[in-house]
Amino acid sequence: MAGSTLGIIFQLTTWGESHGAALGVVVDGCPAGLHLEKNDIQTYLNRRKPGQTKISTPRKEADEVQILSGIFEGKTTGTPISMLVPNTSQRSTDYSEIASYYRPGHADYTFDTKYGFRDYRGGGRSSGRETIGRVAAGAIAAKALAEFGIRLCAYTKSIGPIGISMDHFDQTAILETPTAMPDREASLLAEQYLADCMKQYDSAGGVIECVIDGVPAGLGDPVFEKLDADLAKAVMSIGAVKAVEIGDGVDVSLHNGSTNNDPFRIQDGKIIKTSNHAGGILGGISDGSRIILRAHIKPTPSIFTPQETVNKQGEELEISIKGRHDPVIVPRAVVVVESMAAITLLDALLRNASAKMENLKKLYQI
Amino acid sequence: MAGSTLGIIFQLTTWGESHGAALGVVVDGCPAGLHLEKNDIQTYLNRRKPGQTKISTPRKEADEVQILSGIFEGKTTGTPISMLVPNTSQRSTDYSEIASYYRPGHADYTFDTKYGFRDYRGGGRSSGRETIGRVAAGAIAAKALAEFGIRLCAYTKSIGPIGISMDHFDQTAILETPTAMPDREASLLAEQYLADCMKQYDSAGGVIECVIDGVPAGLGDPVFEKLDADLAKAVMSIGAVKAVEIGDGVDVSLHNGSTNNDPFRIQDGKIIKTSNHAGGILGGISDGSRIILRAHIKPTPSIFTPQETVNKQGEELEISIKGRHDPVIVPRAVVVVESMAAITLLDALLRNASAKMENLKKLYQI
Amino acid sequence: MAGSTLGIIFQLTTWGESHGAALGVVVDGCPAGLHLEKNDIQTYLNRRKPGQTKISTPRKEADEVQILSGIFEGKTTGTPISMLVPNTSQRSTDYSEIASYYRPGHADYTFDTKYGFRDYRGGGRSSGRETIGRVAAGAIAAKALAEFGIRLCAYTKSIGPIGISMDHFDQTAILETPTAMPDREASLLAEQYLADCMKQYDSAGGVIECVIDGVPAGLGDPVFEKLDADLAKAVMSIGAVKAVEIGDGVDVSLHNGSTNNDPFRIQDGKIIKTSNHAGGILGGISDGSRIILRAHIKPTPSIFTPQETVNKQGEELEISIKGRHDPVIVPRAVVVVESMAAITLLDALLRNASAKMENLKKLYQI
Amino acid sequence: MAGSTLGIIFQLTTWGESHGAALGVVVDGCPAGLHLEKNDIQTYLNRRKPGQTKISTPRKEADEVQILSGIFEGKTTGTPISMLVPNTSQRSTDYSEIASYYRPGHADYTFDTKYGFRDYRGGGRSSGRETIGRVAAGAIAAKALAEFGIRLCAYTKSIGPIGISMDHFDQTAILETPTAMPDREASLLAEQYLADCMKQYDSAGGVIECVIDGVPAGLGDPVFEKLDADLAKAVMSIGAVKAVEIGDGVDVSLHNGSTNNDPFRIQDGKIIKTSNHAGGILGGISDGSRIILRAHIKPTPSIFTPQETVNKQGEELEISIKGRHDPVIVPRAVVVVESMAAITLLDALLRNASAKMENLKKLYQI
Repeated sequence: MAGSTLGIIFQLTTWGESHGAALGVVVDGCPAGLHLEKNDIQTYLNRRKPGQTKISTPRKEADEVQILSGIFEGKTTGTPISMLVPNTSQRSTDYSEIASYYRPGHADYTFDTKYGFRDYRGGGRSSGRETIGRVAAGAIAAKALAEFGIRLCAYTKSIGPIGISMDHFDQTAILETPTAMPDREASLLAEQYLADCMKQYDSAGGVIECVIDGVPAGLGDPVFEKLDADLAKAVMSIGAVKAVEIGDGVDVSLHNGSTNNDPFRIQDGKIIKTSNHAGGILGGISDGSRIILRAHIKPTPSIFTPQETVNKQGEELEISIKGRHDPVIVPRAVVVVESMAAITLLDALLRNASAKMENLKKLYQI
Repeated sequence: MAGSTLGIIFQLTTWGESHGAALGVVVDGCPAGLHLEKNDIQTYLNRRKPGQTKISTPRKEADEVQILSGIFEGKTTGTPISMLVPNTSQRSTDYSEIASYYRPGHADYTFDTKYGFRDYRGGGRSSGRETIGRVAAGAIAAKALAEFGIRLCAYTKSIGPIGISMDHFDQTAILETPTAMPDREASLLAEQYLADCMKQYDSAGGVIECVIDGVPAGLGDPVFEKLDADLAKAVMSIGAVKAVEIGDGVDVSLHNGSTNNDPFRIQDGKIIKTSNHAGGILGGISDGSRIILRAHIKPTPSIFTPQETVNKQGEELEISIKGRHDPVIVPRAVVVVESMAAITLLDALLRNASAKMENLKKLYQI
Repeated sequence: MAGSTLGIIFQLTTWGESHGAALGVVVDGCPAGLHLEKNDIQTYLNRRKPGQTKISTPRKEADEVQILSGIFEGKTTGTPISMLVPNTSQRSTDYSEIASYYRPGHADYTFDTKYGFRDYRGGGRSSGRETIGRVAAGAIAAKALAEFGIRLCAYTKSIGPIGISMDHFDQTAILETPTAMPDREASLLAEQYLADCMKQYDSAGGVIECVIDGVPAGLGDPVFEKLDADLAKAVMSIGAVKAVEIGDGVDVSLHNGSTNNDPFRIQDGKIIKTSNHAGGILGGISDGSRIILRAHIKPTPSIFTPQETVNKQGEELEISIKGRHDPVIVPRAVVVVESMAAITLLDALLRNASAKMENLKKLYQI
Repeated sequence: MAGSTLGIIFQLTTWGESHGAALGVVVDGCPAGLHLEKNDIQTYLNRRKPGQTKISTPRKEADEVQILSGIFEGKTTGTPISMLVPNTSQRSTDYSEIASYYRPGHADYTFDTKYGFRDYRGGGRSSGRETIGRVAAGAIAAKALAEFGIRLCAYTKSIGPIGISMDHFDQTAILETPTAMPDREASLLAEQYLADCMKQYDSAGGVIECVIDGVPAGLGDPVFEKLDADLAKAVMSIGAVKAVEIGDGVDVSLHNGSTNNDPFRIQDGKIIKTSNHAGGILGGISDGSRIILRAHIKPTPSIFTPQETVNKQGEELEISIKGRHDPVIVPRAVVVVESMAAITLLDALLRNASAKMENLKKLYQI
């Protein structure tokens, strides 16, 4: 089944395998007239690039984007934007062994069952490199959203047991710490924790939070295309995400209505909420306050510790995974979460253009 | 924007408002030849019917389904199944006051912003009664899945601070306790807790868990249509859900790879996993073990306690919500979560039919 | 497979069988704030109602529409509009015989092959009564388009060999002649031709033309969602249509570039075309001139003349179809073609709202 | 709006402009396990390549395809197949003049109106080179269909007034004549006709017919996704097509039921039809006989004859189009029509896999 396409109006289609010739994305439905250049995309891609810190895989990839269509004279034309990143660090020999068995925590077994066989090199289509296309598309979405005053900010909230403190929140640290934490102290502790994990040939999980400011009230649709439902799908579709929360998330089940409801008030002549347990979404539609979401990321499944598994022939065996792997997925996934949120928000903003006759009459000058 | 339709092959479209003439659903893409009768639907609908216990709204609704198309000689014909439930307990006078102001925690403000006005009677389209269509469709999906040996079971896992004990798990209790808990002791404690909430004019939240057994490996698609992504969307699209977890969910961020990976082994000649932290899904595709998901439900926003809000004219005011409201949404939402899971699973099963040439050749007898 | 839903933003889902309880449609994505009342729909439905003239089936159907959702205080709310027409003239006994064999020119054989069995009463889902949902949705689309100055006009262009003369074009005649021809003289000739056909227990085909004025330039999308491609699908999806033409249609293959190109000129400060061979669409996008399309309709397949066929058991037999049938489908299909064109146009108009940043900035007041 | 994606299960997304870096397509949803190599695609692409005959543009393009993903060990993996053709013959200077004015019969004016500006080089996205992606995808679809015994054959039926004779039908001639006619005599006449057109600085139109054999009964869905409706959209979405016919097409309006109905009979124990006016489709579903469709193609709009038009500034002017243009689009469009038919058929075949419980039980071995 097709399933590599997301979005209704702003629509992306990703393609490519870890060890194929290239990976890429086609972004269709981007409104015409957005100023866009290669560097807008590259800046985002650089945030997920491997080989940049000691807590990321030593595998180096240039991950340099090529824009092949959809831009003319520095602006989007309204037609599909095709982008491609060549694979340059393909050491397929690393993966010859894993062709035969099923790595625990990976999609090897499920792909073989579904399709009859699989491209086993580096995980093939189920590799984290598939997110290159998402991030390239996310960069465009974020650029478009900025024109409407909408700003996204994602960061690592915790790695294993080490969480950030909101009192130390420093946005500049997100791009400067190897953990993508906005808290330099917590980041040092997390680095220490990861060093310990690596010593034990193990890996760690963590939490990514994404906040979105400047979202006008009214985005999202009331039933199945609720803004929070679309965000949940977009974020859960990132490999390794096992839970998605909106606003107070899992804590709401312990609250009471009196503490969980957000009162409306008037400020500077505008309707605002004096708290934001809802995370900026009511009834599936943005309410004008900050949107807040969190993704819970499982520990990297590729660990050097010996593990029990089976092979294609149905024999039990013990394996030790080799190769170049991140001890934690979280820091490099931060920009992926931000990208998926941007993609979802922009689609909702475009869909909302035709929500009422009043809007349309303004456009068609009736 | 259209947004009342869900699914790619098994596709449902819901319609209707809390106080309109009726609510309903059109289910398209159900395979022909499934035995189906009215009672299959009604049994499911009865599980979400109000007025059945003292912890549910005293508002009585017959909620009797009519099947208008798509069934012939007791079997589905492959054409759309239209189902309708008339609204019989419409006391619109209850809602005259709320037309003017915005209830905290509700979609009143966001609907007005998006559409310019709203059907304010009983929440209109944003009412929990919208889920009638989902449950009617879910009943069909569950019936179809049963033919493939797939069985769903959803239940209340906690209400406020009161959780069930897996040691006391008793499936028959789900349909017999007013809380839909599979633990009769916990249920009594939860009822007491809810009685206390009601005394304080307040409401409670809780957690619903859904487990799905008998799912063959191979359902779900690797990128955006991951089975967990589609489940997350389907469940998050239920009003009041603020978080969705798969398998170990939010706990994975505290785990290490060595404890979170599920080893593969051979049992009775078949590949199985010796643990199930993943909740039955690897790389977005079912792995043959039990699928586990949880939904976190916020407390009912309609509470009798006075609350601060604003009205359409931009004036601040204090309100006390009247009417007939559930002190907790969880027990009646259990069947809604089960329905959304069933709908998602069946669509994945149908989509998977064309995943490989081998399947198709079997069908077209090549 | 689901396939009863059409449109991306303005989206309709039809349901119902000829001899089921009712037929209907859910219209989702209609912009909020459109004034709409039952009579807007009924007027359109009355144009396809049977039993009104001697060249239409004598079967009487009230075909009275019920609106069940999506309208509040006389305006669309932006949520799904569910509409239903009860079946009142069901004489299932008429159809007991046809359960066993396959009528030539009908979908009996193909339904049985596809689904394993079929609702044989009156053609079931493949009956012309399925178009009731299309016409109800088309009435809404036409009403919305009128607010933007877009006006549709469909009529019978020919029945068998009898064609209208553009010199006699009289729009009022469309609703007044039994043939839906805008030429009273031609209509009389066509009635005579049909009377002759009926005497010979035979049926006739014909051509429907639809012209659309006031369409702004810019509707339609350049590749697969070309306005003419969407119109072709919408119109070809009406049972009995075997060809669709845009503008000069089949004649273009005989033209040369010099005679087929439409020159641009300036009139009253606006860009216009001095001819319209293209039928108002260039490169899949409306060019501001009149849109012209034609549908070629096959003769009613239900004829009283004896025909050769086979039955489900694989036996050859000769049949004589009984029952109440139109000698020509064309006059009652005129409003169906107009409806499908309206539905397609409105969807294109809504989709176009997000085509360029300039539009969106106007809307979001940047 | 997004609109560069077609299909529900077998889904293609095309991208690229005439004078951009490359053009391409992503094919998603191709079943896993289909043997596929570069040459399967290249053979198809060569059929639409320019510069091969004197009746095609002298512009040379290598049009050599690169496959970037989705194939492993010579077989499709079930994941997206990304294909790309670099543009090598870009003489943008040819097009500097047309940036300022609107060529009659082209999409220049409509693109400018819709998007605010356009990539004017060689028609940009509205160029016939956009069909490269369609043909690459069509080659895959045709290869897959062949595995089910389904064979497509498209050819030129007429160019201007010169039509083929079915008595002279010679399938080998399709690939050997410059006109793609299956009648060598007619082809010579058509070449002469085109030479005359070129002498007069003019161009010609024509008709393409596509026949499909071996289609099992049961493909297509009864309402909006009728096989003929999907074929009509797919074919009408090719630039320059102005009419689509199925079976007897425009002639049906002159027939009577008694001559237009196709009788069913038994042959070799199987149900067949003794005539095929319907062109292999009844009620939107394939009936097991040959599928027949025709596309009517307008004359190339780029002609050297002086034409009246306007420019962006709203000034009237006379232009003479220069550059390298085909005097007739038809021969190179033959493989495009065949490709669009193949894409549509394969999607219908995949969709049909889940039409009945019986099919699914066979697959899931219940």
